[in-house]
Amino acid sequence: MKTMDWQDGCLVLLDQTRLPGEIIYIRCEKPEEVAEAIKTMRVRGAPAIGAAAAYGMALGALQQKTGDREQFMKRLQDIYDLLAATRPTAVNLFWALNRMMKVAEDADTGDVSEIKELLLTEAHNILLEDIEMNRRIGKYGNSLIPYRARILTHCNAGALATGGYGTALGVIRAAHEAGKQVEVWADETRPLLQGARLTAWELMQDNIPVTLITDSMAGYLMKNGQIDLAVVGADRITGNGDVANKIGTYTVAVMCREHGIPFYVAAPVSTIDMNLASGDEILIEERESSEVTNLYGREIAPSGVRVFNPAFDVTPNYLVTAIITDRGIIRPPYEENLGKLFLDSDK
Amino acid sequence: MKTMDWQDGCLVLLDQTRLPGEIIYIRCEKPEEVAEAIKTMRVRGAPAIGAAAAYGMALGALQQKTGDREQFMKRLQDIYDLLAATRPTAVNLFWALNRMMKVAEDADTGDVSEIKELLLTEAHNILLEDIEMNRRIGKYGNSLIPYRARILTHCNAGALATGGYGTALGVIRAAHEAGKQVEVWADETRPLLQGARLTAWELMQDNIPVTLITDSMAGYLMKNGQIDLAVVGADRITGNGDVANKIGTYTVAVMCREHGIPFYVAAPVSTIDMNLASGDEILIEERESSEVTNLYGREIAPSGVRVFNPAFDVTPNYLVTAIITDRGIIRPPYEENLGKLFLDSDK
Repeated sequence: MKTMDWQDGCLVLLDQTRLPGEIIYIRCEKPEEVAEAIKTMRVRGAPAIGAAAAYGMALGALQQKTGDREQFMKRLQDIYDLLAATRPTAVNLFWALNRMMKVAEDADTGDVSEIKELLLTEAHNILLEDIEMNRRIGKYGNSLIPYRARILTHCNAGALATGGYGTALGVIRAAHEAGKQVEVWADETRPLLQGARLTAWELMQDNIPVTLITDSMAGYLMKNGQIDLAVVGADRITGNGDVANKIGTYTVAVMCREHGIPFYVAAPVSTIDMNLASGDEILIEERESSEVTNLYGREIAPSGVRVFNPAFDVTPNYLVTAIITDRGIIRPPYEENLGKLFLDSDK
Repeated sequence: MKTMDWQDGCLVLLDQTRLPGEIIYIRCEKPEEVAEAIKTMRVRGAPAIGAAAAYGMALGALQQKTGDREQFMKRLQDIYDLLAATRPTAVNLFWALNRMMKVAEDADTGDVSEIKELLLTEAHNILLEDIEMNRRIGKYGNSLIPYRARILTHCNAGALATGGYGTALGVIRAAHEAGKQVEVWADETRPLLQGARLTAWELMQDNIPVTLITDSMAGYLMKNGQIDLAVVGADRITGNGDVANKIGTYTVAVMCREHGIPFYVAAPVSTIDMNLASGDEILIEERESSEVTNLYGREIAPSGVRVFNPAFDVTPNYLVTAIITDRGIIRPPYEENLGKLFLDSDK
């Protein structure tokens, strides 16, 4: 099972809105199709969005007929803007788009067809590097997992949310591969049920024991001593270690602290946005009310009811036990230790 | 809109599994039909279950052909057992059944037809008293509500959960009737969506402003200062003030304390079970996994996934700001003050 693949000049995406009932791949030939797939969450998860957007840029480049570099760059900027407008919260989206743009800008050739090649190669690199980063996240994260562990996760930070292997689920996969006795509690994650539809499905494919619960049951399990740790992904981490992630993550983190349970965040360094000092500066995407009131076209609430539907929340740094990155485990104080991480990488 | 009504020798119940899409009343002519309606949650909510079960006893009595009191009582005990086995957590069920049984046992007549009359009258009394109790709960509770209040509620402790008017929603109704500016945040309350299907619907009928959220969004709202207080119902309250209520209530209570938000429980005194010293002794009903994996017959999770589905959780007394009863507001220390309440009532 692949989240995305490049085939015959097209980006092929597993349509995650159809899982687990149907396994359907869609072919994107144009950047507009990639943008639509991101917006409607056919592809979702911060790292996967980044990689898909990179391919969207590559498609937009390959499509162009012009041989004029200036015209080419102007159109590329339009495609950048189109893709950047799809989802506001995940920073990997902007990280990937900027990386693509930089390749085009820095190319020391006037030959547009060469730039196109460079862009496609860069998109491939972003995808392959992501899988590699996730394996490193898994390796570091595994060091935090006891031999027997009952692990809570929220939403889907798995192979489906990334190029492959997963961030939070990458940590769980690595522990499972190391022979540890891990069992997963998967929050179903309303409104879009990524936990039920994607996380449970993905773990069942790998024969990792998983039990599905509704989001409000995790507290009950914690109180009864049935959860040893929680690990989630992230859509954006700010310079002070605040974490934007799927709505409900903040509640999981508070409940973990209430019960003395470690709360880990697993994410590649590309998720860290050092331009933002704290989570207060993160724009939280609000999505359509129909995500809450309808399920597969069926109304599950009174017609016309008012709805509030924020897609993310922010977990403040003091609730985060550690951040598991592809460059190691970061512990508090985050401002200092995340700062060091970026200083080191500039060397 | 009535939750239940006695018509032409039948108990007529609003089928709450069909709301809000369809308003359908079912007629129960036999106690077995009442038991089925309770089990499948066509009628639900602790006080409503109590009243429906009382009518179930009355139906079982009226149905009998025998004129022999001993035979009659034996059969009545069978009906008691049938109804008592429907839902284990709500104490009002047992309270109502015991009250009915006592009427039959204490009747100073050997005439079975007279006992039948007494039983039907008692069932009517239980229903009418419940509405009256809820109005008193509302009156007391209103004293706790500020002039402008944004109120979170979980599940449905409304007119639909009771004989009428509601417990938690009774408090909100009373504040609204008193001219206060109340706005309600309704947790949708997975898995059975009583908040979306019943609470939102009920409040919209009464033109009380309501906004629907998924269960995991309440924490986000609290963090943003958008919730002033929470009020919920109860299925059972133990002698020390621990509260069994719909799964997720415990998480709401912890989040309230984290944010310094008052957390109130509204319930009639019949919900208080002085026979249990603490919430540890409450039997928590586990329900079928299909409630989590299916919605209106559609699968929303992978086939065969393992599920854990507890219907209730227990909120420990230290998280409860006050218990609003039909005999006044009870504050900590609960063991002492609930004890006093029952001592007073024995005088």
